[in-house]
Amino acid sequence: MKERVLHIFKNAPEPLDAIVIANDVEPNIDMSFYYATGVQSGLFEQCAVVLWPDGRSELFTSFLEETSALTSGSEIRTYRKSAERDQMLKATLKGVKRVGICGSGLTYRMLQEMRKWTAAEVVDVHKAVEAARMIKDQAELESLREACRIASEVGELLPSILKKGMTEAEAAAEVNYLMQRKGASAPSFITNASFGPNSAEPHHSPGEDRLKAGDAVLFDYGALFRRYGSDVTRTFFFGKASKKQRRMYEVVLEAQLAGIDAIKAGANGKDVDDAARKIIDSSEFKGLFIHSLGHGIGLSVHDGGRMAPDLDLELRENMVLTVEPGVYVRGEGGVRIEDDVRITKGGCEVLTSAAKELRVV
Amino acid sequence: MKERVLHIFKNAPEPLDAIVIANDVEPNIDMSFYYATGVQSGLFEQCAVVLWPDGRSELFTSFLEETSALTSGSEIRTYRKSAERDQMLKATLKGVKRVGICGSGLTYRMLQEMRKWTAAEVVDVHKAVEAARMIKDQAELESLREACRIASEVGELLPSILKKGMTEAEAAAEVNYLMQRKGASAPSFITNASFGPNSAEPHHSPGEDRLKAGDAVLFDYGALFRRYGSDVTRTFFFGKASKKQRRMYEVVLEAQLAGIDAIKAGANGKDVDDAARKIIDSSEFKGLFIHSLGHGIGLSVHDGGRMAPDLDLELRENMVLTVEPGVYVRGEGGVRIEDDVRITKGGCEVLTSAAKELRVV
Repeated sequence: MKERVLHIFKNAPEPLDAIVIANDVEPNIDMSFYYATGVQSGLFEQCAVVLWPDGRSELFTSFLEETSALTSGSEIRTYRKSAERDQMLKATLKGVKRVGICGSGLTYRMLQEMRKWTAAEVVDVHKAVEAARMIKDQAELESLREACRIASEVGELLPSILKKGMTEAEAAAEVNYLMQRKGASAPSFITNASFGPNSAEPHHSPGEDRLKAGDAVLFDYGALFRRYGSDVTRTFFFGKASKKQRRMYEVVLEAQLAGIDAIKAGANGKDVDDAARKIIDSSEFKGLFIHSLGHGIGLSVHDGGRMAPDLDLELRENMVLTVEPGVYVRGEGGVRIEDDVRITKGGCEVLTSAAKELRVV
Repeated sequence: MKERVLHIFKNAPEPLDAIVIANDVEPNIDMSFYYATGVQSGLFEQCAVVLWPDGRSELFTSFLEETSALTSGSEIRTYRKSAERDQMLKATLKGVKRVGICGSGLTYRMLQEMRKWTAAEVVDVHKAVEAARMIKDQAELESLREACRIASEVGELLPSILKKGMTEAEAAAEVNYLMQRKGASAPSFITNASFGPNSAEPHHSPGEDRLKAGDAVLFDYGALFRRYGSDVTRTFFFGKASKKQRRMYEVVLEAQLAGIDAIKAGANGKDVDDAARKIIDSSEFKGLFIHSLGHGIGLSVHDGGRMAPDLDLELRENMVLTVEPGVYVRGEGGVRIEDDVRITKGGCEVLTSAAKELRVV
């Protein structure tokens, strides 16, 4: 993935002879390994990729994952034992004086392993990698579009899932099944289905609580497609909606649309957050929007970049971010509405299309 | 989780004043954080836990996950901003001269963060943590039993899933749905459904290949229950089975039973591997069992410990490991049979019960 590698070097704060990205074992995998190599399958535990300033990359893979390695844009170096990996990397990195690492994904243990490969000075360039990853290229956008299509189609079906007396865990199972039937390789994170008061907890884990009339029903879910994940939230009301619930929904939807409206290349993320937040804070729900407005998505569900108060983030073309205001009333319930958008020169393209008018199911 | 903390300190190679376990952001979470604290829900990105030699633990959590933190056995310290976290940890670690870290789960970035908390000498104790995690306590066994029950019940249903012309991805979706309906919070890893020649690739990703008569059908899957995952493989034949396929199955099953038979506390993992391997290597499938016999399971699907040639591992009571011999013929297909077992004094308890007689569906 030559362009991606060049992009990382361009972002680096100082000249480097090479960059090494190395995985530990699951779950301690550096998603940047997948970014730099473009491998479409495989796990690559304790494997490494060496990036060079001319855009070349060398992927050191164990024999077991050689087939997956062939889906990458890198030159493939296959080893059978880790001692062989160490020898090959030592030879490869000979003469390298200053080497970049990706400190947000490299474990301390793998850094010690790396010491067997090179004595070069180490520079943590995770910010350069993150900045490159934030601007999506065409292949990444294609995967994200597909991940968003799947989540959107499932979004339209959410009301049909709901049955009185079902548990949150059952509802989450239905969402995951629908996503996978529509082409997702997996959910992009653990699906959140929250009923009633549980919807007031932004990160609720679906459990055994059962659906009853008057409940707010909040689904926060996403589809993984070729390692890229979407992230969508829809909130419904089951059986009936109180005046307060309707009003919450109205305010959150207005805030979300205002946020989307404020987005464009060149805007500051904190101003977009403010455009949405001030609508909630000038309503009777003041102070109840307790998280930031959105975050980057991609290979990780929190892929770098946030639109939040007091945080400068210059929005740039082809960043992909969530826009997800919410209002949470402890003990009663919450409403959140979340879409994924691609930043464009003049505004943004909303990639997730499921209906979001207030709906009583 | 006092006993777990004491166990880690007991395993440490030298006296320590404290141990710090810190998460980065998903997926770079240290599963040992969940082990040491026992938290049942929540993600705890960039949160830390401090373990003390007397068995106490202090969990530093962001306000957003305070509710989840209350499910832990640790003392809770809540912060709102990371600067506040840094201050609290600095005060807590005052006077600590030598601090343990878990190098297999700590990122380089979080190590730099930790430098704001303490100037103490750092000792990587990930082997001590891994050794503690390998011996499961009662709460862990309870979760693993449930994860195994779910996978076993689904195992019995696998033949009923199979329909001529279905894709591997569709078959994997059915498996995941069944697991979640039976109480799994998620699959414990990406479900592998391999048809025909794809079954010869141990780590195949399910794709668009369709099921046809004569195919071997290999399912490798597991259920996650309270963060603990099972790991099971069953192989079937669709429509018909050739003489060679039947023979492969027979040999792999015999090898698996021999492996299970060789297991007991005090045995060496490499001897157990050998007991299974020599059955395959004395058959016409010599050399086609291309991976190790088994690995520990728990909070991670590769949870520490392997039964493999040339690797010493003393089996101890309440370790939980997979036993999974296989035979792989490139271009044709493979057979693998995998169960999860708990080591006992005199042998082992097989935790996964799905039928494993040769079956043509």
